[in-house]
Amino acid sequence: MALWDIDKIPFVGKEKGLQQGLGFHYYDADRVVAGKKMKDWLRFGVAWWHTFDQELVDPFGVGTAHRPWQGKYSDPMDEALAKVDYAFEFFTKLGAEYFCFHDRDIAPEGDTLRETNANLDKVVDRIEANMKSTGVKLLWNTSSLFTNPRFVAGAATSPYADIYAYSAGQLKHSLEIAKRLGAENYVFWGGREGYENLWNTQMKREQEHMARFFHMCHDYAKEIGLDAQFLIEPKAKEPTTHQYDFDAATAIAFLRGYDLIDIMKLNLEGNHANLAGHTYQHEIRTARDAGVLGSLDANQGDKLLGWDLDEFPTDLMETVSVMWEVLDEGQIGPHGGLNFDAKPRRSSFYAEDLFRSHIAGMDTYAAGLLVAAKLHEDKVIENLTADRYSSYDSGIGATIENGTATLASLEEYALDKPQAELIAATRSDHLECVKATLNNYMVEALAEA
Amino acid sequence: MALWDIDKIPFVGKEKGLQQGLGFHYYDADRVVAGKKMKDWLRFGVAWWHTFDQELVDPFGVGTAHRPWQGKYSDPMDEALAKVDYAFEFFTKLGAEYFCFHDRDIAPEGDTLRETNANLDKVVDRIEANMKSTGVKLLWNTSSLFTNPRFVAGAATSPYADIYAYSAGQLKHSLEIAKRLGAENYVFWGGREGYENLWNTQMKREQEHMARFFHMCHDYAKEIGLDAQFLIEPKAKEPTTHQYDFDAATAIAFLRGYDLIDIMKLNLEGNHANLAGHTYQHEIRTARDAGVLGSLDANQGDKLLGWDLDEFPTDLMETVSVMWEVLDEGQIGPHGGLNFDAKPRRSSFYAEDLFRSHIAGMDTYAAGLLVAAKLHEDKVIENLTADRYSSYDSGIGATIENGTATLASLEEYALDKPQAELIAATRSDHLECVKATLNNYMVEALAEA
Amino acid sequence: MALWDIDKIPFVGKEKGLQQGLGFHYYDADRVVAGKKMKDWLRFGVAWWHTFDQELVDPFGVGTAHRPWQGKYSDPMDEALAKVDYAFEFFTKLGAEYFCFHDRDIAPEGDTLRETNANLDKVVDRIEANMKSTGVKLLWNTSSLFTNPRFVAGAATSPYADIYAYSAGQLKHSLEIAKRLGAENYVFWGGREGYENLWNTQMKREQEHMARFFHMCHDYAKEIGLDAQFLIEPKAKEPTTHQYDFDAATAIAFLRGYDLIDIMKLNLEGNHANLAGHTYQHEIRTARDAGVLGSLDANQGDKLLGWDLDEFPTDLMETVSVMWEVLDEGQIGPHGGLNFDAKPRRSSFYAEDLFRSHIAGMDTYAAGLLVAAKLHEDKVIENLTADRYSSYDSGIGATIENGTATLASLEEYALDKPQAELIAATRSDHLECVKATLNNYMVEALAEA
Amino acid sequence: MALWDIDKIPFVGKEKGLQQGLGFHYYDADRVVAGKKMKDWLRFGVAWWHTFDQELVDPFGVGTAHRPWQGKYSDPMDEALAKVDYAFEFFTKLGAEYFCFHDRDIAPEGDTLRETNANLDKVVDRIEANMKSTGVKLLWNTSSLFTNPRFVAGAATSPYADIYAYSAGQLKHSLEIAKRLGAENYVFWGGREGYENLWNTQMKREQEHMARFFHMCHDYAKEIGLDAQFLIEPKAKEPTTHQYDFDAATAIAFLRGYDLIDIMKLNLEGNHANLAGHTYQHEIRTARDAGVLGSLDANQGDKLLGWDLDEFPTDLMETVSVMWEVLDEGQIGPHGGLNFDAKPRRSSFYAEDLFRSHIAGMDTYAAGLLVAAKLHEDKVIENLTADRYSSYDSGIGATIENGTATLASLEEYALDKPQAELIAATRSDHLECVKATLNNYMVEALAEA
Repeated sequence: MALWDIDKIPFVGKEKGLQQGLGFHYYDADRVVAGKKMKDWLRFGVAWWHTFDQELVDPFGVGTAHRPWQGKYSDPMDEALAKVDYAFEFFTKLGAEYFCFHDRDIAPEGDTLRETNANLDKVVDRIEANMKSTGVKLLWNTSSLFTNPRFVAGAATSPYADIYAYSAGQLKHSLEIAKRLGAENYVFWGGREGYENLWNTQMKREQEHMARFFHMCHDYAKEIGLDAQFLIEPKAKEPTTHQYDFDAATAIAFLRGYDLIDIMKLNLEGNHANLAGHTYQHEIRTARDAGVLGSLDANQGDKLLGWDLDEFPTDLMETVSVMWEVLDEGQIGPHGGLNFDAKPRRSSFYAEDLFRSHIAGMDTYAAGLLVAAKLHEDKVIENLTADRYSSYDSGIGATIENGTATLASLEEYALDKPQAELIAATRSDHLECVKATLNNYMVEALAEA
Repeated sequence: MALWDIDKIPFVGKEKGLQQGLGFHYYDADRVVAGKKMKDWLRFGVAWWHTFDQELVDPFGVGTAHRPWQGKYSDPMDEALAKVDYAFEFFTKLGAEYFCFHDRDIAPEGDTLRETNANLDKVVDRIEANMKSTGVKLLWNTSSLFTNPRFVAGAATSPYADIYAYSAGQLKHSLEIAKRLGAENYVFWGGREGYENLWNTQMKREQEHMARFFHMCHDYAKEIGLDAQFLIEPKAKEPTTHQYDFDAATAIAFLRGYDLIDIMKLNLEGNHANLAGHTYQHEIRTARDAGVLGSLDANQGDKLLGWDLDEFPTDLMETVSVMWEVLDEGQIGPHGGLNFDAKPRRSSFYAEDLFRSHIAGMDTYAAGLLVAAKLHEDKVIENLTADRYSSYDSGIGATIENGTATLASLEEYALDKPQAELIAATRSDHLECVKATLNNYMVEALAEA
Repeated sequence: MALWDIDKIPFVGKEKGLQQGLGFHYYDADRVVAGKKMKDWLRFGVAWWHTFDQELVDPFGVGTAHRPWQGKYSDPMDEALAKVDYAFEFFTKLGAEYFCFHDRDIAPEGDTLRETNANLDKVVDRIEANMKSTGVKLLWNTSSLFTNPRFVAGAATSPYADIYAYSAGQLKHSLEIAKRLGAENYVFWGGREGYENLWNTQMKREQEHMARFFHMCHDYAKEIGLDAQFLIEPKAKEPTTHQYDFDAATAIAFLRGYDLIDIMKLNLEGNHANLAGHTYQHEIRTARDAGVLGSLDANQGDKLLGWDLDEFPTDLMETVSVMWEVLDEGQIGPHGGLNFDAKPRRSSFYAEDLFRSHIAGMDTYAAGLLVAAKLHEDKVIENLTADRYSSYDSGIGATIENGTATLASLEEYALDKPQAELIAATRSDHLECVKATLNNYMVEALAEA
Repeated sequence: MALWDIDKIPFVGKEKGLQQGLGFHYYDADRVVAGKKMKDWLRFGVAWWHTFDQELVDPFGVGTAHRPWQGKYSDPMDEALAKVDYAFEFFTKLGAEYFCFHDRDIAPEGDTLRETNANLDKVVDRIEANMKSTGVKLLWNTSSLFTNPRFVAGAATSPYADIYAYSAGQLKHSLEIAKRLGAENYVFWGGREGYENLWNTQMKREQEHMARFFHMCHDYAKEIGLDAQFLIEPKAKEPTTHQYDFDAATAIAFLRGYDLIDIMKLNLEGNHANLAGHTYQHEIRTARDAGVLGSLDANQGDKLLGWDLDEFPTDLMETVSVMWEVLDEGQIGPHGGLNFDAKPRRSSFYAEDLFRSHIAGMDTYAAGLLVAAKLHEDKVIENLTADRYSSYDSGIGATIENGTATLASLEEYALDKPQAELIAATRSDHLECVKATLNNYMVEALAEA
C-alpha cells in the first residue's frame, strides 16, 4: 500500500506554462551525458532532517508543514519507525538513489547514551531492511553534536571534558552504523565547534581537542574496517559567531596543521559558501586545487540575506558552474554525491511540495550538467585559459615554472623593457564576452535538451 | 572617415561557441515584441562618463583603458570636442538612440563658473550639431556636484552656503542645456548629499536645503519652459557613509515630506538596489506602486561585494524581472529608458571592448524582454497572483477592500472559527514551482528567439 | 515567599575586577541627571517574551535555559498564571518600572479566538492585580500575528481574507487589553508583513490592506477611548525576505502615503537598524526629524552577523549616541521608554543570568546617559554644528533658508568666484578630533560617575 | 628651518572639552606599562603612501588634501626628494620611531625598470641620510605590484610571464633597499594576486607561481644577507573579486601547502579583517595560534560599509582587544610594530589634520594598551578561561589531552551518564558579565591614566 499519494516521478521532458505537474523536465536518470549516466554524475541524496523531520519552523514561527505521518503516532519510536517506510517510498518514487542522515534525525534520545543507542539500533534495523529491498544507498551519515543543550558550547571543542567524552561515545556508535549500512562517506559538520565570544575562548586548545577527536575517529574507523571517506563540512557562522571550519581554505589550513590532510576531505555547500563571502564555485575550486573535494550539498542561499536558507537550488548559472567543476574534476569526489541539504520554503508546505521542490532541484542540477557538458565538450574554458596562460609554456615563462628562474635572471630579462612593451604583454580578457558565452551556452544546451 | 575601426553592429542572431564577433544575438531593434519595437521598449542610452571618460582606474590602480583619442590632443578642449565626434559615431555604430551625460563629463572646468560655462557651451554646440545629423537623442543630462573638492561636504546639502550657491548656479546652466538639447529627463544623483558622520551633521537642515534646491530647480525649469521629467537617483552609500536618497522608499518619504512627489520621479539602478540590500525588481516595484517610476540604469553589481561595480548587465534572470515590471507598467516611465551606467571590467581594456560590453548588455536586456513578454503573454504571474488573492474579491475580503469592515465585524466573522479551518484558508504557494517556471520560460523564450 | 532566589538589585557603584555581583554600577534610579531622574529618562521595560518565554533555542538547537518554573506545571494555563507572579517579582527586584508583552506571550491559544481570548483574560486579571500591587506599568503591549502557522503569509497582508479577518479580531481584543491595563503605547511589529518572493506578491494591494488595518485599529481605539500611542516597529527582513517596514524612512514613506503620519510613530531597535544597513543613531535621527520618534528597544546586534541577535546592550558608544539623541529631543518620545528586546546568550543560561544581563544592559544605558548628559551640558555637538552651518545664518545663506533665493540669484552670486575662493569656503571638519572628543567624554564622565 | 608649521607634539595628559590641541592624552612614549615603555610595546610606524602621497581622492571625487609641498615643484623628482624631508620632520615631530613605504610611493617611475631604479636610488640616498640624522627606523618596506596598468591581472599571479619577470626584477631591487635601510620586516600585499572572475582563471597555476615567487625572494634575501622578517598581508577582496590571501587562515593554508610556513609570517589589518567577515582580534588570535603573527596595521573599518576605509583607529574596545592579544603574546611579533595604514577622512583635509589624526590613533592604541595591561595584570581573562577549561586538567579530560583516550574509553565513561548529569557538566558563561567587566576595566584604567 502506498504511503504517499503520488506516483513515481516520470521524466516528461520540457513542458509549457506554469510548472505544476509532477515530472522531470531535464533529469533523465539513465541518459548518458559526457560519458556517464546523469544519475552517476549527480548521485542525488535526500536529506533526512529536512525532508522527514523539518516542520518548516523559523525563529519567529512554529512549523507550517503538512506531513502524512503527523498525528498518527503517540509513541515517538513508532513514528520514527514509520518514517523509515515513508522515507524509502519517497526515495524510490523520486528516483533518488542515495540518502543522508544524522543519528538524531532517525530516532529519539533516551536518558543515557546506551538507551539512545538502543533506540537508534531499532531504527537502523528497519533502514537496513529497506535499503536491501529498494537498493537505495547511504551517501553519508553523520552525528548531531549540536542540537541537545549539552552541546551548548560545542562537542569536540566543548570546554567540558564530560561533553567531549559523550561526543566521542556518540560518534563511536555512529561510525558503527556507517559500517553496517555501507556509508560511502562520513560527514562532520561542526555546527557548534567555534565560539560565541573570543574573550572566553582558548581557541588553540579547542582546535587541538578537535584534531585529536578526528584522529580518534580515524583510528576507530580503521579498527572496525570502515572505509567511508571522512568529510568536514565548512560553514562560516550560524549558530556560532565563528565556526572553526569557516570555509574551504580555513578547513584546509586546519587539516594541514594537524596532519589530517590525507585522512579527510570536504563536503561543500553553496549556501555556506555565500555566508563566508564566496561563490560556490570558488569553494569547489579551492577544494579541488588542494585535492580535498569530497562531496557536495545541493542548495542555494540568498546573497542579500545573512543567514542559512537552505533553499532548493534553482539558480541555473550556479549549477552550471558547479557541474563544470565536477566535469573538469571527472567526478564530484571519490565517493561524492549531491545531497539536498534543502527544504521547501515555509510557504510551500504541502506534503506534495517535498516532491515538487526536489524535482525543481534535480532538474536544475541536471540542466546545469547539460550546459556544463556542452561547454566541456567544446573546450570553451579550457581553450580560453590555455591561451591566456600560454606565455608560461615556453621561454621566460617556462623558466619560472621549471624552477630555473631567479630574481636575478628575471631582472635581467625585464630591466630594459620599455613600459609600452610591458603593457603590450598584457591582453584584454573580454570578460563581458565570456559571460555572454556562458549565457548563450545555457540557452543552446537547454533548448536542445 | 571612421574614427572607430569597427563597422555598424549588425543583428546576427544566435551563434555558437565563444562570443567573439561583433553582432547582436538577441537585440533586433525593429523586431516587434508585445506590441512595440524592441528599441522602443528598451530605449538604450550610452553613458558618457563610463564610455568616453572612464580610464578604468580603481582605488588601487591607475587606468588601463586603451582609447583611440588618447595622446592625440594637448589642449583639453580639443580633446573634449573630438570626443563628441567619437561619441556620436559610437552611438550610431552601436545603434543606441539615446545618450546621457553630466555637465563635467563633456568639458573641462575653468577657474570660474562663467569660464566653465563657456567651455561647456562650445562642446554643447558640437553635440547639438551631432544630434541633428545623427538623430541620436538625449535621454537625460545631469550635473556633477560631487567630483570637485568644493563638494567635499555636499552641494545642495553642503554646510557652506557659498558652495550651495555655486551648485545652484551650476545647475541653472545645466537645465538650460537640457532645454537646448531637448532632454527627455533631468537626473539628480546626490552622490555627496548625505553624511560622513552623523555627529557633526544637522541632517534635517541639510534635507530642507536639498528640498529647497529641488523647488528652485523646478521653478526655473518652468520659467524656461523645460519639460524634462525630473528624476532622483537613489543610492545607499558610497562615497558617503549614508546618502539621503538611500533607496526608493527613502526617496519617496522625502518627496512626500517636502511636497515634491508630483514633481519628481526616480531613476533606479540595479547595483544601487543591491547596496541598499534590495533586488532591482524590488526597487522598481516600490517606485511603480508609488507612481514614481521614471527611468532605469542598466547595470549590475556583485551581491558578494560591498561597493558599486557598475558591471554591464549579463544576469539574464535579473533582466527578466526588470522587463517584466516594465511590461506590466506598460513602459519604463513616461520618458524613461535604459541608460548603461556601466563600464567594462578593468581587465577588458581594449577600445573594442566598449562595443563588446554594450552588446552583451543590450543582448541581455533584449533577452530579458523576450522572456518577460512570453510570461506576460501567457499571463503566468497575473493568473497566479489573481488566484492567490482571490479571497478579497468577494465576501468578507471585499468588505475589507471596500472599507465597510471594522475590527468588530471581522472579529465576529472570525471569533469561532476553529484552528483547522483557519489553516485550511491558507494555501501552499509552491514557490519552487514558480522558480522552475521562470527558468523554463527563460529557456523556451530564448530557444525560440 | 520569594519566587526568585535573589534579593532586590541594589546600586553599588563602581566595583573592581570581574563583574560577578548582582548590583548596579551606573544605574542609580533616583539620581538626577540633566534635570530628570535616571529612571525617568530611561523608563526601562522588561520584555515578557525573551525573559519569561524564551528558552534560548536557536535554529540548530533546543533550549538551554534553566528557569525556576520549568517542570512545575502540567497545565499550560497554570504555568501561564504562575509566570505572572514570577514576572512581577522580577520587575520589582530588578527595579524596572515597565514591561511589554505580546498577547500570545502570556497565555496559550485555544482552538478558536473566543477560547484564546478567554485564556488571555484570565491571565490579564492576574497581571492587573500585580500591576496594582507593585506599581509596575505597561510600556506597551502588542499582538503576535506571526507565530501561528495561519500567519504563514502574513496577517494584515495575508493573501487570505480569513486570516486578515482573524488578525483584526485578535487585534481588537489586544487593544481592549491595552485599554484595561493602561498601556502607554501600542506596538505593531509586522514580522510577516512583507514577502518571501516578489513574483507571487501583489505588493501594493498588500500595503493597502495593511494601511486599512491600521485605520480600523485607530478607529476602534477612539471608540473605546484608548489613547495609547500607536507605534510601528521597522525591521528590514527576517523572517521575511523583505519586511514592508524595512527601516524608519520606509515606514515614514508608508505613513505619509496612507494618511497615517499623524496617528502612528515609530518604535526603533538597534539590531533592526543594523539589519537595514544603518546605525541605531541614524534611525533615531531619521524618526526625530520626521516627528515620529515614539519609543526604543534596548538591544544590540553584531554588525558582522546577518541575523537578529537581540543581545543585551553593552556597547557604550552606541548607548552614548542613543541617549544624546534622546537628550537633544528632550525625551524618548511622548510616552516612550527603553524596552529590553534582548535575551541572554544561549551560553548564559542560568536563571540568575536574566538578572545579570538586564543589569549589564541597564548599566550600559545609564552610562550612556551620563556621557551624553556631559556632552550636552557642555554643548559640544551643538556648538560644533552651529559653527559648521553658520554660513546659512546670514548673507547669501539666509536667502536660501528664507526662501528668497532663486537659481538666478545664486548664479549671480557665484558666477565669477574663482576656484580658490570656493575651496576656501569649505573647512576641514577634523573628524578624528570629534571621535577623540567622544572617547574622552566617555572616560571623563564615567570616571566621575 | 621647519617645513611643518607645527611644534613637536607633547604629551599633555587628559584634557576637557573638544579635542583641538596638538598633544597626546594617553600616549606617553617613555612611560613604562607592563614592563616595557609604551613606545616599545607599540612601535608606531607612519605609512608613506597615506601621509605623503594620498590626496584624499575617492572613486567619485578628486583629492581634497591641502599639503605644504603642493604646487612647489615642477619636476616630480624634486618633489619626491623634498617630501623625504617633510616626512622625517613629520616623524620626528610626531614622535613616531618607524615608517613604512612601497617602492613606488617614494619615487616616480621611468620608462624602464632600470630608469625607475635609478630614480628610486636617489630618493633612498636621501632617506638613508635622514634615517641617520633622526634615528627613525624602517619598520618595513614593500613593493607596489598593483598600481601600474601592467599589473592589471596581477604580478606574481599574472597570466603574462613578462609581467611576472618584471615583478621579480622590481622585487629584487626592493629587497636590496630593505637591506640597505635595515628594514626589520618586508611586506607582501598581493592587491591584485587574486581573480576578477574564476571562469578565466587557472587558480592553482597562479598560486604555484606565487609560491615560487616567494621562494625566489627568500633565496635572494639569503644571498644578500637580508634578515628582515617576510610578511604576507591578507585582504579578502578589493580591488580583486577574491584575493588569494583572503584572511589569516587562508594565508596559513597557503604557507603550509607550499612549504613557506617557516619563512613567512603575517601582517594583519583591522579593516581587512572586517572585509573577510572577522573581528581584528580573531585574525590576530588565528595568526598567534599558528605561530605566524608578524606585524600589525593600525586602522579601522566601518562594519556597515563594504569597502576598505583605512580610518584612523578610534574604537577603544577594538584597540583593547588588539593590545590584550599583544600582551598575551609578549610582543606584536619578533620585529613587529603598528603601522598606520590609515588616512584622515576626505573631509579632514588640512595639513595639520595629518598630525591630529595620527594623534587620535596613537592615543587610542595607547589607551588600549593601558586597559589591556590592567586586565592582564589582574589575570581577568587568564583566570576566567583557566577555570572554564579546567575539566581537561585532570581525570577523563587529561586522557584526552595526553593522547591516551580512544572512542572506546570515552564511550565507556559516558555510556550510562544520565542527561541531567551531562547538562550539569556544562556551566553558564555569564557572557554579559564578561562584557560589563571589559567596559568597567576600560573606564577604570583610563580614569587612572
